[in-house]
Amino acid sequence: MFNVVEWKDNKVVMIDQRLLPTKEKYNTYKDYKGVAKAIKDMVVRGAPAIGVAAAMGSALGALQSTAKTPRAFKSDFNRVCKHLAATRPTAVNLFWAIERMRGVFEANSAKSTGEIKKILIKEAIKIHDEDIEINKRMGKNGAKLLKMNSTILTHCNAGALATAGYGTALGVIRAAVEAGKNVKVFADETRPFLQGARLTAWELKKDGIDVTLITDNMAGYMMQQGHIDAVVVGTDRVASNGDVANKIGTYSVAILARAHKIPFYVAGPTSTIDMNIKDGSEIPIEERSEKEVSHFAGVRVAPAGINIKNPAFDVTPSRLVTAIITEKGVVTAPYKKSIKKLFSK
Amino acid sequence: MFNVVEWKDNKVVMIDQRLLPTKEKYNTYKDYKGVAKAIKDMVVRGAPAIGVAAAMGSALGALQSTAKTPRAFKSDFNRVCKHLAATRPTAVNLFWAIERMRGVFEANSAKSTGEIKKILIKEAIKIHDEDIEINKRMGKNGAKLLKMNSTILTHCNAGALATAGYGTALGVIRAAVEAGKNVKVFADETRPFLQGARLTAWELKKDGIDVTLITDNMAGYMMQQGHIDAVVVGTDRVASNGDVANKIGTYSVAILARAHKIPFYVAGPTSTIDMNIKDGSEIPIEERSEKEVSHFAGVRVAPAGINIKNPAFDVTPSRLVTAIITEKGVVTAPYKKSIKKLFSK
Repeated sequence: MFNVVEWKDNKVVMIDQRLLPTKEKYNTYKDYKGVAKAIKDMVVRGAPAIGVAAAMGSALGALQSTAKTPRAFKSDFNRVCKHLAATRPTAVNLFWAIERMRGVFEANSAKSTGEIKKILIKEAIKIHDEDIEINKRMGKNGAKLLKMNSTILTHCNAGALATAGYGTALGVIRAAVEAGKNVKVFADETRPFLQGARLTAWELKKDGIDVTLITDNMAGYMMQQGHIDAVVVGTDRVASNGDVANKIGTYSVAILARAHKIPFYVAGPTSTIDMNIKDGSEIPIEERSEKEVSHFAGVRVAPAGINIKNPAFDVTPSRLVTAIITEKGVVTAPYKKSIKKLFSK
Repeated sequence: MFNVVEWKDNKVVMIDQRLLPTKEKYNTYKDYKGVAKAIKDMVVRGAPAIGVAAAMGSALGALQSTAKTPRAFKSDFNRVCKHLAATRPTAVNLFWAIERMRGVFEANSAKSTGEIKKILIKEAIKIHDEDIEINKRMGKNGAKLLKMNSTILTHCNAGALATAGYGTALGVIRAAVEAGKNVKVFADETRPFLQGARLTAWELKKDGIDVTLITDNMAGYMMQQGHIDAVVVGTDRVASNGDVANKIGTYSVAILARAHKIPFYVAGPTSTIDMNIKDGSEIPIEERSEKEVSHFAGVRVAPAGINIKNPAFDVTPSRLVTAIITEKGVVTAPYKKSIKKLFSK
């Protein structure tokens, strides 16, 4: 179908998600700084995909090192990791992947530079492949929650394009479709970056899954009219109490779902759960460029000289979350307890 | 400042709202069919402005008639009115204005064709001028509800550009600012037509009123963060029970406001109240072209071959409405009673 992030001939290849759905173009990176810029500029986006890209970026950075001593090599690798970690603040998978690569580096630090480089590349590819497997397990766990012939609202893109493949929220939908559940999807267009219109609609259409595009402000109306049976979204970071950071607008959808007594499901791998934070208030919310709001498809749509806000994420309190779907199982409130239990398995 | 709809040298002149904020262009219409097309294509939009445009359009149509007999003249005028009424279904001001013009025609039917034409033109200009006066009275009534130093969220454009001038929701804000209340505004961009980004931000900036633009899906987040003190929106039609039709997304904002215990105010002239309907379920919701969602400025933003919905309005049940602000006063629940009382004044 398409590769989101791939390790190929000692380079990182990524589909340029900024150009979809009109162009399907692949960019090749041979410098880790290019990978970092691609994460920052949203060539690649989606928490799990960012994690995979960062892992591959760190392997690429290690490969680029010309250090002659273990100490210099380690210093190079640390610089690479630091550079990659400074790209986007909200998705925890970025930091999770970098930490995992650091751990592998440490565990093999006695080996030769050449050997460590090979091990890091192998680990990055492993993170990639594992991500797809994890999504498929998550999909199966989540598909059970979706009813036959139901219509699912999703926000942003938590699909194959947001992961190494298959998707988190869209993975749940794919698994339900594969289980013969005849599920249909409503996709919020998701301003300002239009991940719903550009990416979710594109990949669902490729898969032959029935998708209806709406603007973000139509979600409440569609719920009021009885068109939505459940909401499934992805997540960029889940706090240890079940608070969920996700694309801006997710919180509004959660409030609307609650007001209409519609279940609100969050799908994310356990790598998205941040056990180091008590609740959502500790999750940094990235503020992106005003231009994403003032311009639309390169055309100015707002007058110059006004104030503009562009928070890229929001936090949905766990009380609005019906269940969190992970590869290790589905958890429900009380989340502090159920999430802790996930990690003791 | 700018004229939204104007009668000038026996022609109708309108600012082309599709080109704002980048171009301030005025279109001149000498054919009532051109006025009808301008309403349909949203050169002019906003319930009260549509009413004024339709009134002027009907006067223009009468003026164009070459009928030699009263009967033929009346038949011409009826055709004009029917043509204008078929442009947009949701805003009741369109039908209200046409009915008023019809009434004036009837009341003067004994007069000569030439005299009736003059009377119709005078009436259309009167509707225009009255609208501004009504907005100013409404503004004063509503301004009392807004607190000192408060920040108001508005959706779509219920401003000078949506009326003959001054505005309904933005009229309330203007009146509050004029009363020295130091009110700031958050404007939802209002997809798909971007009335918030293109029109509300533009006219508030012109007036030197502090305005912050957000995408529609940021409204919940801004409320959660405590940035919004009240919501004020306009309306295209109010049912006799207080249900409010307004731009798509208004219902979602009302749900969000209720969830955050933020007052939700609706500003509209009594001409927007439709006493002929029992509740909001009787208000027809216009479905507009899919292209408004799939494209922007000629650029495709969604893949071809998917389903798209584009309802232009939604209905907010009166239980979510804190108060309705009219030129005759502010009414609150129970609306059936309070609205009825408005018309007995």
